[in-house]
Amino acid sequence: MTNPETALDALWAPESVAIVGASADPTKPGGRPVAYLSKHGFHGDIWPVNPRVDEIAGRPCFASVADLPGAPDVAIVLLGVARAEAAVRDLAAKGCKVAIVLASGFGEAGDEGRARQDALREAAGDKMRLLGPNTIGAMDLSKGIVLSASGALECDDIPRGGISVASQSGGILGALLSRGSAGGIGFCKLASTGNEADLDIADFIAAYAADEATTVIAAYIEGIRSVDKFRAAAESARCAGKPLVIYKVGRSESGARAAVSHTGAMAGEDRAYDALFRQVGAIRARTFSDLLDLPAMLASCRTMCGNRVAILTSTGGAGSLVADNCGILGLDVPELDPATGKTLADLLGQDQPMTGNPVDVTLAGVEPTIMTAATEALLRSDGIDAVAVVVGSSALARPDVAAGAIRAGAAASNKPLIAYVSPHAPHILDLLNREGVPAFSAPEACATVLKGALPMPPAGRLLRPGSAVVPAGLPNGTLNEAEARALFDAFGLTGAKSFVVQTADEAAMAAGELDGPVVLKVLSREIAHKSDVGGVRVGLAPEAAGAALTAMAERLAAQELPKPEGYLVQAMVHGGIEMILGLRQDPQLGLLILLGAGGVQAELSNDSTLRLLPLREGEAREMVNELTITRLLEGYRGAPAHDIDALIEAIEALACMGDALGDRLLEAEINPIFVLEDGQGVAAADGLVVLGP
Amino acid sequence: MTNPETALDALWAPESVAIVGASADPTKPGGRPVAYLSKHGFHGDIWPVNPRVDEIAGRPCFASVADLPGAPDVAIVLLGVARAEAAVRDLAAKGCKVAIVLASGFGEAGDEGRARQDALREAAGDKMRLLGPNTIGAMDLSKGIVLSASGALECDDIPRGGISVASQSGGILGALLSRGSAGGIGFCKLASTGNEADLDIADFIAAYAADEATTVIAAYIEGIRSVDKFRAAAESARCAGKPLVIYKVGRSESGARAAVSHTGAMAGEDRAYDALFRQVGAIRARTFSDLLDLPAMLASCRTMCGNRVAILTSTGGAGSLVADNCGILGLDVPELDPATGKTLADLLGQDQPMTGNPVDVTLAGVEPTIMTAATEALLRSDGIDAVAVVVGSSALARPDVAAGAIRAGAAASNKPLIAYVSPHAPHILDLLNREGVPAFSAPEACATVLKGALPMPPAGRLLRPGSAVVPAGLPNGTLNEAEARALFDAFGLTGAKSFVVQTADEAAMAAGELDGPVVLKVLSREIAHKSDVGGVRVGLAPEAAGAALTAMAERLAAQELPKPEGYLVQAMVHGGIEMILGLRQDPQLGLLILLGAGGVQAELSNDSTLRLLPLREGEAREMVNELTITRLLEGYRGAPAHDIDALIEAIEALACMGDALGDRLLEAEINPIFVLEDGQGVAAADGLVVLGP
Repeated sequence: MTNPETALDALWAPESVAIVGASADPTKPGGRPVAYLSKHGFHGDIWPVNPRVDEIAGRPCFASVADLPGAPDVAIVLLGVARAEAAVRDLAAKGCKVAIVLASGFGEAGDEGRARQDALREAAGDKMRLLGPNTIGAMDLSKGIVLSASGALECDDIPRGGISVASQSGGILGALLSRGSAGGIGFCKLASTGNEADLDIADFIAAYAADEATTVIAAYIEGIRSVDKFRAAAESARCAGKPLVIYKVGRSESGARAAVSHTGAMAGEDRAYDALFRQVGAIRARTFSDLLDLPAMLASCRTMCGNRVAILTSTGGAGSLVADNCGILGLDVPELDPATGKTLADLLGQDQPMTGNPVDVTLAGVEPTIMTAATEALLRSDGIDAVAVVVGSSALARPDVAAGAIRAGAAASNKPLIAYVSPHAPHILDLLNREGVPAFSAPEACATVLKGALPMPPAGRLLRPGSAVVPAGLPNGTLNEAEARALFDAFGLTGAKSFVVQTADEAAMAAGELDGPVVLKVLSREIAHKSDVGGVRVGLAPEAAGAALTAMAERLAAQELPKPEGYLVQAMVHGGIEMILGLRQDPQLGLLILLGAGGVQAELSNDSTLRLLPLREGEAREMVNELTITRLLEGYRGAPAHDIDALIEAIEALACMGDALGDRLLEAEINPIFVLEDGQGVAAADGLVVLGP
Repeated sequence: MTNPETALDALWAPESVAIVGASADPTKPGGRPVAYLSKHGFHGDIWPVNPRVDEIAGRPCFASVADLPGAPDVAIVLLGVARAEAAVRDLAAKGCKVAIVLASGFGEAGDEGRARQDALREAAGDKMRLLGPNTIGAMDLSKGIVLSASGALECDDIPRGGISVASQSGGILGALLSRGSAGGIGFCKLASTGNEADLDIADFIAAYAADEATTVIAAYIEGIRSVDKFRAAAESARCAGKPLVIYKVGRSESGARAAVSHTGAMAGEDRAYDALFRQVGAIRARTFSDLLDLPAMLASCRTMCGNRVAILTSTGGAGSLVADNCGILGLDVPELDPATGKTLADLLGQDQPMTGNPVDVTLAGVEPTIMTAATEALLRSDGIDAVAVVVGSSALARPDVAAGAIRAGAAASNKPLIAYVSPHAPHILDLLNREGVPAFSAPEACATVLKGALPMPPAGRLLRPGSAVVPAGLPNGTLNEAEARALFDAFGLTGAKSFVVQTADEAAMAAGELDGPVVLKVLSREIAHKSDVGGVRVGLAPEAAGAALTAMAERLAAQELPKPEGYLVQAMVHGGIEMILGLRQDPQLGLLILLGAGGVQAELSNDSTLRLLPLREGEAREMVNELTITRLLEGYRGAPAHDIDALIEAIEALACMGDALGDRLLEAEINPIFVLEDGQGVAAADGLVVLGP
């Protein structure tokens, strides 16, 4: 198999394109690719293939793939599901580099469809790459290379820009192209990956990351097939400094089910995708329109250096809408500093410096020179990190003038400058976006994109297990608690002090060594619910430990339970705040690490967070900071602070344990882990580990 | 002052309109009202007033208000802030019924502006009503009466329909009119109330509720001046069966501040507005676009009888988007029933019944007869309560055909039928909305409007204090706990059994009467933090109560604290779940009742809810159901259930106490109130009451 970058190079810079199943009627979908290739400016060879036609749009038409004058760089297969496989086989034999299969009826269509997709994949062989099936193809608008039959390409005046799009759905790609084009948003490359029999969303993200013409990447995702490949691709975008904006369906069960039946992608836990996107520095679009709005903002390459927004308006209500939404997302809409307030007052011929924000210039907003000067003054203010200008109804009469007035102020600084267009005014939106001032018709979008323009924190270094090693000889299945403790200990996750004992005498001696009351637990890989069968005693006085062991052994024997491996005598943990720390396998995304508040109330309010492994430096602290209970850990209302640093060490230690065990670890949980007062560390009370072979 | 309905009758059906400050240039804002009145079909008298012009648009122009040939029903005052007051005074003298003042620079413009607004109000006198200042006026599109200079009225083809709008912002009204018109959404009456020197948002809601041509009411609100008047207006809309959709800014501090400086409206606690809107049966729009989308849906007068949605699509990705958003809002996207699945399979020539939902008909969706028949089949299914049809890119080629195919299916039932338009296709959105199929370009909106089409629960009857009376002679300020207990007791809020004592002997005797350990508390109106000064002892053995009182008295005396009114000996409450129940005054909205989970963790997660007083039957139960902790009350994971009925009685009792005390009650709180196990009631432990004069 060739290197994916090479395959995509052929896709984006073909010298010859074969259209298998081309129709001579340019109004039919089968006639579009030849027409679109010509219309959008492709200068290489176009080779239509159709045994029933001699000529299409003045070009000779070939009867079969075998008859082609050479190996095409790219072939678009327009044939239906029944005939696509043979065409792909012929193309592979001919030496084609990439075949694009548009037909549906493969992996998304039950068992039969999956078998057809496997056959298609096999027909492509190991040299030719496959895009699709169930795709609308790919296009590079910057070079006019359009490998698609999508009706969205009927449009003549598609703005060109730095946004490249990868979508698992062809329909969504078409919708983004048509919506973006109408709004003046400039695209670079676009591809729909469909069923991803071969090339997948990660291949395109990686290609865009390496592509000079791309500045921002947008992706529509239904499910990720290989999390490692996706992570690597997203990381390469981060390293290249290219923002990656992702809309992923499947936040609800209905949506996840729909996505599975659509392209056959598997859904993992949605919250884990949230974590994944955050970990690779991608921005998750919350609404579908955000998937265009955020890239439109980020393509302006202006970053917020703080969270202070000035809103310039001639219409109070719209200013309030933008201010309210900024506030909801945690952005600040501060009063103006005196110097800026004075500049604005001078501009408007007022005596008193202006202080209010939104800055309402009312009727003066009709005057373009005033809007330009006010925009400049706000952009130059040291107390302001971004400016949002409201375009009101008064702009409808002279849209070019209104848009020009804002555009003219943009050069005053490199801070973000956006426009909120209050009335229905598609012409103004289009004009502003084309001129590099991101413009939006939803007040919510204004706040979302400004928040999206805040700088990403730098990625910390990957945490790796280091010198810790997994103890030899651990059995498969559920470990007993002594084994689990030994494993945790090996990675520095120290629990309450404890001894493994076999007899009442040993238990008495161990209890004597420990300070204060003790816990006695049966050690068994086979007894699941130890409390239920009387296998746990807490708060035992040291002198009672021996007799308690004898009684416990009798109780277990009376229930005909398997003979235990021994008993654990453990110091009782006093005080501290109860948390839960664990690892589990997501079928799609691999090992996840979970941190949550302990106890029933926290469970009800779902005060927990998770990340994929491996962790980076700083991510454990982020996890802690996301929890509501952390305000208790920090010392709420005069209560003492607890040992958050030790909790972070414990999270990182467990993450390293997970990395070291890899797929063998099925589940691990420390529940509860007590976070003690500052400087006293954490104490793991109960530990569970389940290993696979 | 005349009855508001009469004033609004004159506004909506004037026989004569004076335009004070009219300009002869129809392209200037001052020239628009005369032009708009003619253009949109007003047949009454139009009287321009301007001393410098003889004639405007072929009509004689009057030099002054005094020169008018009669008393105008309505006058539009186009003059600036400095000259508006004199014009209003002249209009009142002439006998004008309603004056509309467009100028800004009044209540929203600091102390001076407020004084000007008071003077304007005074100039209007007590017979003429005032709309504004700082308004863009009002219009009745159903009759072509346009009393405004807004540029949004330049548009010729404004669709007419049943949606009436009231907005505190003129700019927002213009934006709604321009956006709605472009999208085919039909309006009836629209008004902007601006600074509300007289007529306010509640007047218009009440008028729309009584208006035959109005079917749905939409309101943009920055703050409510009289909550009682607003409640009455909203209730009248509910009684008339007209949905009321409200967008209110001020969810964030920035937004609240912006709103105050915009129209001078005062902001109350935003969460209390949420409660208010819910209590009057209004739907709160979460995004600005919802303020058009929800009314567009509700104007179709189709109600969801359950929460099951079918999605019909020819493009899988868009179907997933709609399905996912439905799921996020708690709507169900179920598999099809066998009969419907069979009908669809027959339609598509498939052997196997279709089961999946979204129903993806892929390429067959291009065929209008299939789309119509599939829409009908889904609307007729007993297992489906609403249908969303996706319009894909294939519809772009023949928008009329695509829209018509959906429209044709609508008659199959009276269930909601909506369209999601996936590509950029304003023409299709406009067409569908005009033809009565609510159509949306955001997948989020599809879910929001379907949820909005679920029926409102019927309003319960108002709870009133009944026979309970406030004990006589309660002092002002903070009551001591015995006084507070007596007040709570009068309304049936019984606490733990207790006795008021003065001496150690009395304490010992009282403790002997109580079962088990007791609490001893100092009774004092003047000592604020009783625990901090040693004024509370808990868990006292009955025999220790006497000595404890003596020691407490000495401790208080040693700190030179005011002499207490006595001591309370109270039975300790055992077990139960800790909650907080209270009343407080919101400066805008009056008495609020609050219910929350007790304890620090619940405080951190803010597990609480509130309502305005008076409550209706059923609302106390709703409050309980909104809390996360209620899953504990219901008996979580096999734990016993707690006495929710008693908690509801306690909420209703406290609400009645609040109603009985009215404005005199500044604050009341029972913290904690323990909800005991089923059948054992609740026990109020600590009670605080603060009364005003």
